[in-house]
Amino acid sequence: MDFRVRAATKEDCKDISRMIMELAVYEKMPDQVEISHKELERDGFCQNPFFECLVAEVPEEQKSKEGFTVVGYALYFYTYSTWRGRAVYLEDLYVMPAFRGKGIGKGLLCKVAEVGRKKECVRLQLSVLDWNTPSRDFYAAKGAQDLTASEGWHFIRFDGQNLDKLANEAPKD
Amino acid sequence: MDFRVRAATKEDCKDISRMIMELAVYEKMPDQVEISHKELERDGFCQNPFFECLVAEVPEEQKSKEGFTVVGYALYFYTYSTWRGRAVYLEDLYVMPAFRGKGIGKGLLCKVAEVGRKKECVRLQLSVLDWNTPSRDFYAAKGAQDLTASEGWHFIRFDGQNLDKLANEAPKD
Repeated sequence: MDFRVRAATKEDCKDISRMIMELAVYEKMPDQVEISHKELERDGFCQNPFFECLVAEVPEEQKSKEGFTVVGYALYFYTYSTWRGRAVYLEDLYVMPAFRGKGIGKGLLCKVAEVGRKKECVRLQLSVLDWNTPSRDFYAAKGAQDLTASEGWHFIRFDGQNLDKLANEAPKD
Repeated sequence: MDFRVRAATKEDCKDISRMIMELAVYEKMPDQVEISHKELERDGFCQNPFFECLVAEVPEEQKSKEGFTVVGYALYFYTYSTWRGRAVYLEDLYVMPAFRGKGIGKGLLCKVAEVGRKKECVRLQLSVLDWNTPSRDFYAAKGAQDLTASEGWHFIRFDGQNLDKLANEAPKD
């Protein structure tokens, strides 16, 4: 199958938003998605964007049965290690089910690595759920380390009222 | 103790670099630190900076025995959830040992939350090591969720040759 991986444009945000929802439906949590193409357009295509995105596109004659030619995406952003410097973090990697097993996911992953290396990033990082054995095996086979398993890193989150409470307790300027 | 939390400037990078090393020494891994104030100046004070940083400063008359008035820092950057949008990630939070127990760490944490909320971030996230019970308890007491414990998220990393290999396998444009 022919496919092309390219940087997303603002015009791709409807396709990306559609696939974010497809991924959430697959994960049985569609009601968790609170952002639409409008927020993606605002947050990804501004000065100092909050993320960058790649899309995988197939030729018109290979479009999906629903008529889509943008069939996968990789959404990522830059992070920083105070020991090693620049890094890239892959938030989402998705390929529509009918287009899997054709190297598109690997193409997106490798392209994110290439984009990161061009920016002198020394790490590519991401998170996976422990029950997601296919993904964990996929990344492990490509040489990734599982830092939760090997070093015991836990991922911690504040949100909602707990986040507001912290913010309200900030020292005054 | 009087202290002030403020945005770091380029001139603070030597102090930040010093404290990054102090933290690594405390963690018994000083040889892991490969960046200096020069990289911090380049990566944090450019267009589209890779991170932002707050510092905690005490008055001259309360300086450390080594003569430092910048006695803590919080280094963070912005990330993105495709379900919820903007988020802030706290990479490092450090207070010099002689200045602990005085609310400086909490002040830095709350200020990061405030900065994040001003940018409409809906999450403040970070990682802790599982043996670091004091930190885990500190965050839990403030309402943080441990997503590794509750949902099974694992933190995955590619670096070195494995990252180069991925980048070299990227589809051609």
